[in-house]
Amino acid sequence: MSNREEALELHRENPGKISVETSVEINDSEALGLVYTPGVAEPCKEIDEDSRKAYQYTSKGNLVAVVSDGSAVLGLGDIGAEASMPVMEGKANLLKKFGDVDGFPLVIDADGAEDIIETVENVAPTFGAINLEDISAPECFRVEEALKERLDIPVFHDDQHGTAIVVLAALKNALKLVEKSLKDSKIVIVGAGAAGIAVSNFLLEAGAENILPVDSKGVIKTEDENIYKSKLAEKTLASEEQGGLTEAIEGADAVIGLSVAGLISEEMVKSMAEDPIVFALANPDPEILPKNAKKAGAAITATGRSDFNNQVNNSLAFPGIFRGALDVKALEINESMKIAASEAISDFIEPEKNAIVPQTLDKELAREIAGRVSEAARETGVAQE
Amino acid sequence: MSNREEALELHRENPGKISVETSVEINDSEALGLVYTPGVAEPCKEIDEDSRKAYQYTSKGNLVAVVSDGSAVLGLGDIGAEASMPVMEGKANLLKKFGDVDGFPLVIDADGAEDIIETVENVAPTFGAINLEDISAPECFRVEEALKERLDIPVFHDDQHGTAIVVLAALKNALKLVEKSLKDSKIVIVGAGAAGIAVSNFLLEAGAENILPVDSKGVIKTEDENIYKSKLAEKTLASEEQGGLTEAIEGADAVIGLSVAGLISEEMVKSMAEDPIVFALANPDPEILPKNAKKAGAAITATGRSDFNNQVNNSLAFPGIFRGALDVKALEINESMKIAASEAISDFIEPEKNAIVPQTLDKELAREIAGRVSEAARETGVAQE
Repeated sequence: MSNREEALELHRENPGKISVETSVEINDSEALGLVYTPGVAEPCKEIDEDSRKAYQYTSKGNLVAVVSDGSAVLGLGDIGAEASMPVMEGKANLLKKFGDVDGFPLVIDADGAEDIIETVENVAPTFGAINLEDISAPECFRVEEALKERLDIPVFHDDQHGTAIVVLAALKNALKLVEKSLKDSKIVIVGAGAAGIAVSNFLLEAGAENILPVDSKGVIKTEDENIYKSKLAEKTLASEEQGGLTEAIEGADAVIGLSVAGLISEEMVKSMAEDPIVFALANPDPEILPKNAKKAGAAITATGRSDFNNQVNNSLAFPGIFRGALDVKALEINESMKIAASEAISDFIEPEKNAIVPQTLDKELAREIAGRVSEAARETGVAQE
Repeated sequence: MSNREEALELHRENPGKISVETSVEINDSEALGLVYTPGVAEPCKEIDEDSRKAYQYTSKGNLVAVVSDGSAVLGLGDIGAEASMPVMEGKANLLKKFGDVDGFPLVIDADGAEDIIETVENVAPTFGAINLEDISAPECFRVEEALKERLDIPVFHDDQHGTAIVVLAALKNALKLVEKSLKDSKIVIVGAGAAGIAVSNFLLEAGAENILPVDSKGVIKTEDENIYKSKLAEKTLASEEQGGLTEAIEGADAVIGLSVAGLISEEMVKSMAEDPIVFALANPDPEILPKNAKKAGAAITATGRSDFNNQVNNSLAFPGIFRGALDVKALEINESMKIAASEAISDFIEPEKNAIVPQTLDKELAREIAGRVSEAARETGVAQE
């Protein structure tokens, strides 16, 4: 059976891969009278008096909505709400398996950013946190900004921040192995969509000083009409450099591909500095295959795929991040919590060239991340307990 | 421990009473590659080509949103979205337990009917059906009408139709025992909210010809500004009668209370026709206690409570109705399906005065209802398989 057929069969046999289960017994009318009317009125009254008690008496505190409008799904593009559902369900599976979080896939047939914002704002009382997913740029930035402002629960766009957290962890370990510093290294970011912009900003925040983001038109520009790009350009080498990817990549210590298959050539890798680091994270097909990057001199390679070494994948981060945020009823997931998550990942292993990040399936990792994220939430005053 | 404390303890120990579980194993990177990227792209592509395949490859086909804005919760009134959550979770519990349906509580912080409509419309691609719950009248009518028109999945306001279905079943069995016909009996409906209006309309549809709905101002009027009341008045005895409940109830064969505690007096019951039927369904405290109604001559009594005989409760109906609708991927829940559900309930037992409806906790009942509802859906052309 081909991989395609195997994937379809798995989804046919377990439609949705999730189920909603009852965690109470209802075997007699007494139990029914507690779970449902009349007993159910008691927790309702408690929450009516003090809305924070929703965490105590309802599933809110462990429920995370995995929200998408299906406008930028995997490498598939704008396939719409219904067709994006399997990805959100997969995400719910990983939240449960690694973080013991009740993730619920909620796909939205929305008419632009404002419509997504209003819908999520309206359903938010149900949930303890919101995971935004596969929403196209630049709408995703507006959606996240508005929801963070309006809601008092964490709102986290995983394509941006999950990716940034794992990339930083992997890059720090890779740089350690080639004995270079984050601060001094020239790092080219290929792709200026949701992930590219978030990774660039997060690396800057972590202390990188020589970032050069490139999009399909070349080095991004300070006068780009997309304000997320123009603002980023001002903070990076893009404020002084121009040209295409070929020029940008020359002399770089690291290149991080968050774009499309095949964009990085062996010639480009050859033009990089000594011991170059090549992360080719486009899914499912990387910007350059690891073996070709190595042939061209790459010291360390990574992809988003599970069938090569060094899988740089969001799933390393998000289950632990949500677990940690929910554990302390965090009001948001702030920069300190993201940095804490990234450090938990990079510190989790003694890195080697073929193992710069932990294994995706290590459940201990999510616990470690959760602990550090909870701690950072408390330290920055966004924990409610 | 008091009932109140017991109910609170149950809700504290099982926060939310539901959990979202993973129905696939993810124990190696191969499995991960099927459940999540890259394998998950395959069902996405299938659904992108043909949206009906969402039923085959996602949880949509067994997922029912239990939606409320918390504006008319039990006897508690407008307590808001967050405080209504325990009721929606209880409903999800019953859907699972009796119908094997994945019910998901979705509470909405909405600003009026239009806002509810838009929010539910936007999230609808996630679900196979929508159960509206505890939304105040008359907004609930507009919400249901609009959503039925806009969506191609069943939309069912349980406070209206679930109640109507169970009341008709109970009333038919009660009338059988006192040897009266639905057609000829004078039936007073006390309360003209969501349930009162829906019960009146459904009884008319089932063949009753002498319905008299009464609200807090007396017999409803053909010139009421609430068009749901004025339209109903025209179809009932209310078009020719007036006065208060005391006058309305005189000579009635049955009275169905869907209002507030204590509204029906012993004197009123005494003024009814021979062998009067008294359904006092206000929750948690009935319009008249069964023992008092009987003292005044009632032949048959019923309440909404589990601690008296003859519990007329929605939970008899909705799990089986949704099961039946989902089983055939019904596009809607139409009048024939509702009548079929009601008949399944009344036919399920050989009625006795203290057992005019089946037991709430009988799982066989939901299966019987589901079968008849599926059949009615097929017969009326709203089944997709």
